[in-house]
Amino acid sequence: MDLFLQILLLLATAKLFGELLERRGYPSLIGEIAAGIVLGPSLLSLVVPNPTLELFSDIGVVALLFLSGAEMNPRAFLERKIIGAATAIMGVAVPFTGGMLLGMLLGLSVPEMLFIAIALSITSIGVSIRILVDLKQLTTPVGTTIVSAAVLDDIIGVFLLGVLSTVTMQAGAPVYSVLLGVAGGIAFLALFIAIGPRLLRGFFDRARKTETHEMVYSVAIMLALGSAFLSHVAGMHYAIGAFLAGLMLGEGIRRDRILFDSLMDFGFGFFVTFFFASIGLLFSFSTATFLSPVLLPIILVAVAAKILGGFLGSVPFLTRREAILVGIGMTPRGGIELVVASVALTTGLIGTELFSAVTAMVIVTIIATPLLMQRGFSAISGADTGN
Amino acid sequence: MDLFLQILLLLATAKLFGELLERRGYPSLIGEIAAGIVLGPSLLSLVVPNPTLELFSDIGVVALLFLSGAEMNPRAFLERKIIGAATAIMGVAVPFTGGMLLGMLLGLSVPEMLFIAIALSITSIGVSIRILVDLKQLTTPVGTTIVSAAVLDDIIGVFLLGVLSTVTMQAGAPVYSVLLGVAGGIAFLALFIAIGPRLLRGFFDRARKTETHEMVYSVAIMLALGSAFLSHVAGMHYAIGAFLAGLMLGEGIRRDRILFDSLMDFGFGFFVTFFFASIGLLFSFSTATFLSPVLLPIILVAVAAKILGGFLGSVPFLTRREAILVGIGMTPRGGIELVVASVALTTGLIGTELFSAVTAMVIVTIIATPLLMQRGFSAISGADTGN
Repeated sequence: MDLFLQILLLLATAKLFGELLERRGYPSLIGEIAAGIVLGPSLLSLVVPNPTLELFSDIGVVALLFLSGAEMNPRAFLERKIIGAATAIMGVAVPFTGGMLLGMLLGLSVPEMLFIAIALSITSIGVSIRILVDLKQLTTPVGTTIVSAAVLDDIIGVFLLGVLSTVTMQAGAPVYSVLLGVAGGIAFLALFIAIGPRLLRGFFDRARKTETHEMVYSVAIMLALGSAFLSHVAGMHYAIGAFLAGLMLGEGIRRDRILFDSLMDFGFGFFVTFFFASIGLLFSFSTATFLSPVLLPIILVAVAAKILGGFLGSVPFLTRREAILVGIGMTPRGGIELVVASVALTTGLIGTELFSAVTAMVIVTIIATPLLMQRGFSAISGADTGN
Repeated sequence: MDLFLQILLLLATAKLFGELLERRGYPSLIGEIAAGIVLGPSLLSLVVPNPTLELFSDIGVVALLFLSGAEMNPRAFLERKIIGAATAIMGVAVPFTGGMLLGMLLGLSVPEMLFIAIALSITSIGVSIRILVDLKQLTTPVGTTIVSAAVLDDIIGVFLLGVLSTVTMQAGAPVYSVLLGVAGGIAFLALFIAIGPRLLRGFFDRARKTETHEMVYSVAIMLALGSAFLSHVAGMHYAIGAFLAGLMLGEGIRRDRILFDSLMDFGFGFFVTFFFASIGLLFSFSTATFLSPVLLPIILVAVAAKILGGFLGSVPFLTRREAILVGIGMTPRGGIELVVASVALTTGLIGTELFSAVTAMVIVTIIATPLLMQRGFSAISGADTGN
């Protein structure tokens, strides 16, 4: 189908489904993902993943993370670095261990075990943040902790994916290439944090003095895309660079309300929707998916281990209820898992059974998390959720 | 090169070049086109035309025409329908005749003559409108006349292109298919004008009552894209449907200043730039381009005939100076000519010499027009250019 029509159809369906869910009191991202599932290869096959949609989705996740960073007070974020680190580490370690144990119980091979363990470990930062945005909890203590942990989680993910690719290449890639990748990522982060604020703000302030009317808007978008691209080149997800750029430029953007609103529209009114609809497009369901005996154990371990890990990491710093909410907030898995699963399937590392089970696990965590979070936040509201 | 990087590079270069030109007092679109020429196949070959960029460019022209329609008072536009029709007809007839005569003088074959005549006839509505926007003259009498004439010009263009494709298909396509195409276009316009206003405003008003925060913004974009797509299906350019949709929704959009500004940012701060940069990408220059003996005659006839035609059509209704400005404003040729020329080249209808000459003609008209318009408007300013 014509690319123009695909974009239009996906946007219209996603916004319609999102609105229908929002009216029933549920977060709209579930509707946007559902639109992708309905229009995509799982059901109607009217829209099929392609490089253009992938680009729209990438710009969407960049906009989502950039705007989330811009909404956040960097000081509040930095104050949470200890709790964020503890939560990220426990939030990866517990599911990873759970995945390995589960693999042993199911009698899987070592590469398969490793695959399951990693597929259970990495939180989808985009989904987690969107849930917080939809529930208006991004800047609460629980929200900031989740974001902080999810960012670090993604960096740990780089390391884990390096390990997995070393294993799948069957001793072809030496260990030092993994270490090199991790070192590259850390070097980028250090450099970006050191010179990024001054550099980005310099560009941003110069944009204010130009003759071109929409220049500040364009420059904000370019800095988000540029930072995202650099983090991608350094081996990390686009999301990381975009988030850091948003954090660094947040003050200037928040001060200009018209600019901030306009960028929010650019993100949430257009591109972000493609990120979530594309998650739906990536699914490939069949009846076999639901009959697999590994399905239920994987989902149970995925949910329980992430909640436990997030809880253990954050409970020294928060109330018990808040710590449980942090654990729930870390539960969604997303695009990275789906991509890893597709690669693992096509390279023959795993069979269709594990592939389908992981796919189903991703969708269950994405759909269940906002519903659980919503109940959780209303349970603790009035108590200790101030800004 | 990575699609993400191509988009970023094109946007950054186009905005930079646009700003540099604007600082020297020239319209920024020249800089945006220049960015496409520099990065594209003519020079660096870092960015090459591809389906994704084409989509960005299409969304850009939709945004440009939609916003121009939204800025315009439909009543002022309708009052100009007689002058618009006269200007469009003369603005096509004179260059068409000029092209045929030129072809005879150059001793070209009949299909080649027809090609030149058509390549000289169709005004680039996108470029014309952007020049008016850049010079802040969109809603003046001259501006409204140019827009009105350019819209009709594009509809006449559908007919001419139908004739050309019948000729190039060498009697393969019967004449009635051309007539069918024209009838389809007219039927769409009649239907759209009859039920469009109520339908579009109905959607727009419902969008205001939704739960989703950015819904009005998203719905405005979807209505623009949807109307553009329908006119494209009916055989016309995306621009026509987008412009009509903008005209129909203008009142509601203009009333909501935040929405209007946000949509302007979406257009002029992002997508529109890709439309102009893509025009630059379509060029393929070589030294042979500048040595061709047909080059100068084609450029001279293109400029002189369009100014004369626009002048003759509008002078009964405007001052002489204004009528000359209308003629100049109709001069830019654009994307359609370049696409027609590429098709004609690949099907063997014309050789590389005519192809290069038409390409050069397009860029000369695009770059010369804003410079001439700028001088013209300052010459008549203070006299009779009120809103």
